[in-house]
Amino acid sequence: MAHWCTTINTPVLFLLQREVALAERSSLSLSCLSHWEENMTDASTNMRLKLPITCFIFQIILIILFGVLVQYDEETDAKEWHNKNRSNYDNDFYYRYPSFQDVHVMIFVGFGFLMTFLQRYGFSSVGFNFLIAAFSLQWATLMQGFFHGLHHGKIHVGVESMINADFCTGSVLISFGAVLGKTSPVQLLIMALFEVTLFAVNEFILLSTLNAKDAGGSMTIHTFGAYFGLMVTRILYRPNLDRSKHRNSSVYHSDLFAMIGTLYLWMFWPSFNSAITAHGDDQHRTALNTYYSLAACTLSTYAMSALTSHDGKLDMVHIQNAALAGGVAAGTAGEMMLTPCGSMIVGFLAGIISVLGFKYLSPVLEEKLKVQDTCGVHNLHGMPGILGAIVGAVTAAVASSDVYGDGMEDVFPDVASGETDASFQGARQAISLVVTLGMALVGGLLVGFILKLPIFGAPSDNICFEDSIYWEVPEAEVGHEDQLRAVRTAESEKLGG
Amino acid sequence: MAHWCTTINTPVLFLLQREVALAERSSLSLSCLSHWEENMTDASTNMRLKLPITCFIFQIILIILFGVLVQYDEETDAKEWHNKNRSNYDNDFYYRYPSFQDVHVMIFVGFGFLMTFLQRYGFSSVGFNFLIAAFSLQWATLMQGFFHGLHHGKIHVGVESMINADFCTGSVLISFGAVLGKTSPVQLLIMALFEVTLFAVNEFILLSTLNAKDAGGSMTIHTFGAYFGLMVTRILYRPNLDRSKHRNSSVYHSDLFAMIGTLYLWMFWPSFNSAITAHGDDQHRTALNTYYSLAACTLSTYAMSALTSHDGKLDMVHIQNAALAGGVAAGTAGEMMLTPCGSMIVGFLAGIISVLGFKYLSPVLEEKLKVQDTCGVHNLHGMPGILGAIVGAVTAAVASSDVYGDGMEDVFPDVASGETDASFQGARQAISLVVTLGMALVGGLLVGFILKLPIFGAPSDNICFEDSIYWEVPEAEVGHEDQLRAVRTAESEKLGG
Amino acid sequence: MAHWCTTINTPVLFLLQREVALAERSSLSLSCLSHWEENMTDASTNMRLKLPITCFIFQIILIILFGVLVQYDEETDAKEWHNKNRSNYDNDFYYRYPSFQDVHVMIFVGFGFLMTFLQRYGFSSVGFNFLIAAFSLQWATLMQGFFHGLHHGKIHVGVESMINADFCTGSVLISFGAVLGKTSPVQLLIMALFEVTLFAVNEFILLSTLNAKDAGGSMTIHTFGAYFGLMVTRILYRPNLDRSKHRNSSVYHSDLFAMIGTLYLWMFWPSFNSAITAHGDDQHRTALNTYYSLAACTLSTYAMSALTSHDGKLDMVHIQNAALAGGVAAGTAGEMMLTPCGSMIVGFLAGIISVLGFKYLSPVLEEKLKVQDTCGVHNLHGMPGILGAIVGAVTAAVASSDVYGDGMEDVFPDVASGETDASFQGARQAISLVVTLGMALVGGLLVGFILKLPIFGAPSDNICFEDSIYWEVPEAEVGHEDQLRAVRTAESEKLGG
Repeated sequence: MAHWCTTINTPVLFLLQREVALAERSSLSLSCLSHWEENMTDASTNMRLKLPITCFIFQIILIILFGVLVQYDEETDAKEWHNKNRSNYDNDFYYRYPSFQDVHVMIFVGFGFLMTFLQRYGFSSVGFNFLIAAFSLQWATLMQGFFHGLHHGKIHVGVESMINADFCTGSVLISFGAVLGKTSPVQLLIMALFEVTLFAVNEFILLSTLNAKDAGGSMTIHTFGAYFGLMVTRILYRPNLDRSKHRNSSVYHSDLFAMIGTLYLWMFWPSFNSAITAHGDDQHRTALNTYYSLAACTLSTYAMSALTSHDGKLDMVHIQNAALAGGVAAGTAGEMMLTPCGSMIVGFLAGIISVLGFKYLSPVLEEKLKVQDTCGVHNLHGMPGILGAIVGAVTAAVASSDVYGDGMEDVFPDVASGETDASFQGARQAISLVVTLGMALVGGLLVGFILKLPIFGAPSDNICFEDSIYWEVPEAEVGHEDQLRAVRTAESEKLGG
Repeated sequence: MAHWCTTINTPVLFLLQREVALAERSSLSLSCLSHWEENMTDASTNMRLKLPITCFIFQIILIILFGVLVQYDEETDAKEWHNKNRSNYDNDFYYRYPSFQDVHVMIFVGFGFLMTFLQRYGFSSVGFNFLIAAFSLQWATLMQGFFHGLHHGKIHVGVESMINADFCTGSVLISFGAVLGKTSPVQLLIMALFEVTLFAVNEFILLSTLNAKDAGGSMTIHTFGAYFGLMVTRILYRPNLDRSKHRNSSVYHSDLFAMIGTLYLWMFWPSFNSAITAHGDDQHRTALNTYYSLAACTLSTYAMSALTSHDGKLDMVHIQNAALAGGVAAGTAGEMMLTPCGSMIVGFLAGIISVLGFKYLSPVLEEKLKVQDTCGVHNLHGMPGILGAIVGAVTAAVASSDVYGDGMEDVFPDVASGETDASFQGARQAISLVVTLGMALVGGLLVGFILKLPIFGAPSDNICFEDSIYWEVPEAEVGHEDQLRAVRTAESEKLGG
Repeated sequence: MAHWCTTINTPVLFLLQREVALAERSSLSLSCLSHWEENMTDASTNMRLKLPITCFIFQIILIILFGVLVQYDEETDAKEWHNKNRSNYDNDFYYRYPSFQDVHVMIFVGFGFLMTFLQRYGFSSVGFNFLIAAFSLQWATLMQGFFHGLHHGKIHVGVESMINADFCTGSVLISFGAVLGKTSPVQLLIMALFEVTLFAVNEFILLSTLNAKDAGGSMTIHTFGAYFGLMVTRILYRPNLDRSKHRNSSVYHSDLFAMIGTLYLWMFWPSFNSAITAHGDDQHRTALNTYYSLAACTLSTYAMSALTSHDGKLDMVHIQNAALAGGVAAGTAGEMMLTPCGSMIVGFLAGIISVLGFKYLSPVLEEKLKVQDTCGVHNLHGMPGILGAIVGAVTAAVASSDVYGDGMEDVFPDVASGETDASFQGARQAISLVVTLGMALVGGLLVGFILKLPIFGAPSDNICFEDSIYWEVPEAEVGHEDQLRAVRTAESEKLGG
């Protein structure tokens, strides 16, 4: 008997241990979590004043500057438009607004949901994306308007400025991808403030000084945004980030949410690249080229993912990201006579490069160069952006009036006017890439140091990739339990009533 | 020894209790839930006959009325269009169809997913939204066609009638937001039947009798829909709704689904407000104004959310809703020469008002006025709608031909023709707001009492916000267990085979 | 005492058993699952070489063929377009690109997410959809270009070829729905290769030989895709598929993801049917007709679902699928003078047929005819496609110049030119349906046998409907536990630091 009791002793103790664990999970967690959440928002990450002050100051300055500087362009101003006596279908709205809306979806849903892949960072991914995009597009309107040329001291706005502002915003969101999970919303707004400004300067140098062509922004948007963000994340290097490692991964449904982002980016990329190219054949051709580049990229991405992954299984990270590299790589040459076949080759290579980057280069970047690139923007925007710039330079260098005819004026006006020849246009494109890389790296360096100031409420290393620092997060999903509670309520009701 | 046994006694009993609880959760729930589900659909909420009968009668009447009354307009009729000898690009389809599709997405995905924030009401949010929208747009075509003027006794349909019908549907869906979780699909269809009718009457009074301007529907759609719905939910007041309180909240993923709705509403609002403004500069300007209003609204929403919430954390309810108030508030003045700066001020204020409403006014409305407003439509559509109406009245009152030039004819035809002056146009706008509020409140009162009839299958107080009354709901997510079962199957297979 | 111990004996043993079960679920599963996953990808389903080889070969052949055969059409070629001296707004891009983008969304998000309803097949549904669509649209461009007529030995591409390629892709994705969960990605690519080819042949016979009209593809896309897929799944019949039965169902959130697909298909179907109809009234009318057909279909779907389901509860399967049947059924007659009322009748019937099919026909097909139709494509695309073809034939047969006027030339050019009369056009439409059914069934038979070759990595019967064979799948959602771990890390940190 005594013997029996001792034998049961061990399992019972085991049971007790299990029970404690179970109790901790359920009942303890209720009291414990609220306690913990208070701990999580210690003084440093508390946004009660920091975020409102930043938002209000930024927005009020924007309103004042818009009041002083911005007016409708001649296609949105009631008086100006009617003075012109043009047919309504000549209004640029009808040429560009559908493309603008596609771009708008890419910026808010595309980028926003692409970053929801993290298991506990969905609110921040979509929500901070929303916030910094809403700020950036206003600030970009001013900065780009200033550099694109004032009209009697005023910035003119219309559908083209809306598209350009969204483009500039895209660049900021690419950088956001590099620092995802490791920054406070105030840091992100500060980053956006500076990045938009530098973007506008770089864009001005490329398009107005060097007369480069970059309608879909392989250089101005993707290369710039990626290397800027990579440098920022390098400066913000966190040696103890592995304390948050268990949160730096996906769960099943977060990967499905991310696919919403991926697919909207993929589908609307033809609109992105063609949104501000010249009317007519140019917009049409750019959309077509991008479409083929993306299709080919998708096949090479799937191939490389299965080839390089564990057990030949496809990796969602590759599909979500590398399949988009074809759009990035067609950003400069898309409007040129790249041919459908040429577009497919570009996309095909972009997909391969991008998957290889995710598989082999990203770990090296993190370990050797201390670049913690959460979303792998180097693989999706960095390398494919450079590829796109090179393809653009080569395609420009071989342009001939045999191929372009009178369409040369739309694509390469300086070549058409005889001011320069095609090979020199190619050289300008190549120089533009170098300038962009320089601007991005130096800019990212400076901004990185600014963001390092310990006043913006960045999370500590053990609480990165976690929504509940900055968001009120509902309790975990219940399902079963909830139903059961309902049963009991219903039954007790019945007994009582 | 005996002592030892007694000491273990308590934990063992505790273990037993836990076991029972665990057993209840797992095995019991299987038998219990099916039993419970039967209980849940007691006679009153059973839709087997009520819903089919309502749908069939409504749809058959619609088909008959369409057969008698509706014909293609001159832009959709093969013979009429070709008689006109106009160029194809003059067809209104090309001016408005892209905007229509954006509006369509807002109605079905925007409103539908915005309401999926509730943890156990996603099927109903998306599904009932789908059902009542599909009914409302057909019924609205008839009602609006009747009031907008018959052509030889016939209602003409084309892209403009499609947009208007979607607009009217939007109003019904706003009211749906107020009563969300507390009504049966039959109640909702009955509500839609009456609300669409009253909407058309109110719209006719505003646009055709008072000659007010309201292209984006700050008054006709948002103010009307909100106050109609608020009055309905007041009449349907449930004193014991706290019995379903545990279900009247979100879970992590339901908030992400809701963000899909939010973002599509936000992105496409420029299309919404500009969808039926005049061709050319008007559509262009309206989209631009709305874009700036929304961007500014987003920043003030984030600021106010962090400022007013617990611990400075952002609240998803605010982000999902208040960030959209800038679109509502630009609904009337969007087509006017509001200027970008003016639009931003409007949006900025709308965001502030809306968050304050969620934080401080909604609890008061519920406790003092017994208005149980599930989605907070008063904060998103009610107050911002009134703000929009006031902004519209003021902007109209200061309109001058210095600013509008020949464009005055498109925006304020009566002012352009000298039939009235700008300040009187402003007065008309203000009167329109009062009329709308009156129509909405009286209409909601009457319809509320109709819906209170105990024959439409409304859920009881303890089973609100619950899909499984009206839907076959799959069991809770399994994941792990399922995989394990698969392992065992695979292994037993191996042993067996 | 001894008595007490024996009485406790049983519950303790029970507890032990429970503990073992619990331990298995949690700790064991960690070691066990990784072991199991290796087992799952045995040699046969391992895609390490099969998928890359297939993708690379297909894509490289595509690139070569595009290089040899494809060139810009006169609306995308810089030289050709500028030679023509046409106004930019005449470029087909502005007539069709917005519709193309809507179609594109239907193909990638619509079809992709519609199939995410399965609990453990979301990655594959969206991901394989993405892969085979990206391949099919390239291959379709070649096949359709070849059959639609070469220009001096070259295939011309532009927005119309993009739409047609997406249409053909849609047909492949319909077939994918029939075999969903039971095929490897390599099988799907092989199926796409053959199906696209046969699609192009069938389309050529219908549109160029029989001069039938089928702008929205009731026959060419839906009927063909459905019966092709049904025959393939018949040939691939799995007698032991019930071993995977527990995974062949939805969970709560997977049904919400599926509704994203449903709604995008529903909203954009008017664009689908009108995307390649003639400019002007034709596109306009087709969109309008489809819009009404879908609205009516939605009401009849809800009615039938409540009428036929258990306890009068709505069934998500019906809502997700049958509500779309109205779009399918308006695919042929949509561009004709079907009238709004006629469109509504068609949609109304389509919804009824489709729900009845899901409820009563699908089980019979599976049991008696051994057709395992995962998504029920017979109910959504098969029967409504046939209905659409019949409606098209009847509507064509009663066409008169009284109704169509000069618009007859756009809709029925042969009737307008007097080459044939309306009733003969109706006969051609009917013959086209028969040809399509024949081509689909014979084609599906042949391709089914090809896919049966045991070299393509199909999953075994007990591991169907499961992502983790072909995808790296993250662990199940954690939520609570993860937070707790974070608490402890934070606390130990505090103690340690």
